[in-house]
Amino acid sequence: MFNSVTIVGVGLISGSFALALKEKGYTKHVIGVSRTKESEQKAIELGIIDEALPLEEAVKKSDLIYVAIPVDVTIPVMQQIMKIVTDKQIVVDAGSTKLVLCKALANYPMRSRFVATHPMWGTEYSGPEAAVKDGFAGRACVICEKEKSDPKAVEIVENIYKDLGMHIVYMDAEPHDVHAAYVSHIAHITSFALANTVLEKEKEEDAIFELAGGGFESTVRLAKSSPAMWAPIFMQNRENVLDVLNEHITQLRKFKACLEKENMEYLYELMENANKIQRIIK
Amino acid sequence: MFNSVTIVGVGLISGSFALALKEKGYTKHVIGVSRTKESEQKAIELGIIDEALPLEEAVKKSDLIYVAIPVDVTIPVMQQIMKIVTDKQIVVDAGSTKLVLCKALANYPMRSRFVATHPMWGTEYSGPEAAVKDGFAGRACVICEKEKSDPKAVEIVENIYKDLGMHIVYMDAEPHDVHAAYVSHIAHITSFALANTVLEKEKEEDAIFELAGGGFESTVRLAKSSPAMWAPIFMQNRENVLDVLNEHITQLRKFKACLEKENMEYLYELMENANKIQRIIK
Repeated sequence: MFNSVTIVGVGLISGSFALALKEKGYTKHVIGVSRTKESEQKAIELGIIDEALPLEEAVKKSDLIYVAIPVDVTIPVMQQIMKIVTDKQIVVDAGSTKLVLCKALANYPMRSRFVATHPMWGTEYSGPEAAVKDGFAGRACVICEKEKSDPKAVEIVENIYKDLGMHIVYMDAEPHDVHAAYVSHIAHITSFALANTVLEKEKEEDAIFELAGGGFESTVRLAKSSPAMWAPIFMQNRENVLDVLNEHITQLRKFKACLEKENMEYLYELMENANKIQRIIK
Repeated sequence: MFNSVTIVGVGLISGSFALALKEKGYTKHVIGVSRTKESEQKAIELGIIDEALPLEEAVKKSDLIYVAIPVDVTIPVMQQIMKIVTDKQIVVDAGSTKLVLCKALANYPMRSRFVATHPMWGTEYSGPEAAVKDGFAGRACVICEKEKSDPKAVEIVENIYKDLGMHIVYMDAEPHDVHAAYVSHIAHITSFALANTVLEKEKEEDAIFELAGGGFESTVRLAKSSPAMWAPIFMQNRENVLDVLNEHITQLRKFKACLEKENMEYLYELMENANKIQRIIK
């Protein structure tokens, strides 16, 4: 279907996307754009990309360009791409924040060739080695500002994601960033902070290592995530993240108050309320 | 090996223990003690127990008594058991806190028949339906105050746990409770508080439901846990839990300060520090 696809960034998301495209027969030729020779080499070895090229050259040779790099560098890279892209090509990004990017690209003549997406999948690992061909299945993919993209381009991108097992959710960029703060960004901050808590207080690392299992791993798993990926996300979505983070600290203080005052009744109430999450997360 | 085993409580832990004992051929007859007829009936239907009896009657008929009920009721129940147990029987508890219980039982003449254990496994589900026969494998089991128990009784209990795939860690009750606050209790509080945060702020539950996948589920999973089980744990271990909780709030405030001041450098530093958890949790 595509003569050539470019992935910008050769990491977890772009690499998994490329592997899935090949597996599903969408293309036989994937070009990788990376900042490091090492990643390019690794991605070639792993069969994720077939060749590595500089950005402009790669874009010019491709029908589909898929950008999955840290959200702060996404903006200048996408602006560069928008300047050279033609009305025969489709450009997609996979970033975890959408408002700043969509604003930055709003006035480019080729805006309609860009489809803003956020496939809601990931793991705590990064780099080409972390890529898997069946990563996206069963999760949501948000498409933002659908009406600003060419309908045919949107349809093609949607069909790819659906083919990878995702379901499509439409949202404006602003509500996307609010919801992303709740269902993803805060969980990462909590997890980073929990890791720091334990590392700060628990000097007997052997004890953690030996005992972990009581729910600790699943909660702290995200603390292994890449700072290069996540720091720009938190910063770009800082107002929403701060809003949720303040609420989270307030909620933790309620637990603290219960324990300090030995208020068993209120403690029960807080936990019973939290149990309602079962309605939403099976 | 045992003519009869009693499990006090017929839930996730005791039920899984009973199923595993039967599977491994340790006993053919398990007696269940439960507060509700409904759980008794369910446990019989599920093949977890063979009959249900009142506590005293059950204890008198059993070689091994395994107590896994909320930690606040564990104390009076264990005291009752210690009064009637003989030097031919072994009593084991599986509670998540150890200091208060060990203190409460210190002066019973039959103290040596009691083995204080904490198998570090669990899920967010409870009740007999949650029991599984291969639950404990690969996790740690802490044995506290080993020297106060009869060596032969300890050996028997250890061998059972090892046979279920657990590795044994010895610890005094006090350090156990400190470590448990770090590797288990705080993760549960964080998760309960995160669920409350999202339920409080995110009024569009459909959005959570549709979008969840970005790390949210694994972090919020523990918020489904039973308040009847966990509230007494937090309360009984309140000093240690408060200590960790205070540190956790301090760590979250550092993230907050980074975002408020747009201090990218410090944000990176916090996250890179959190990444060190990889050394401990693979």
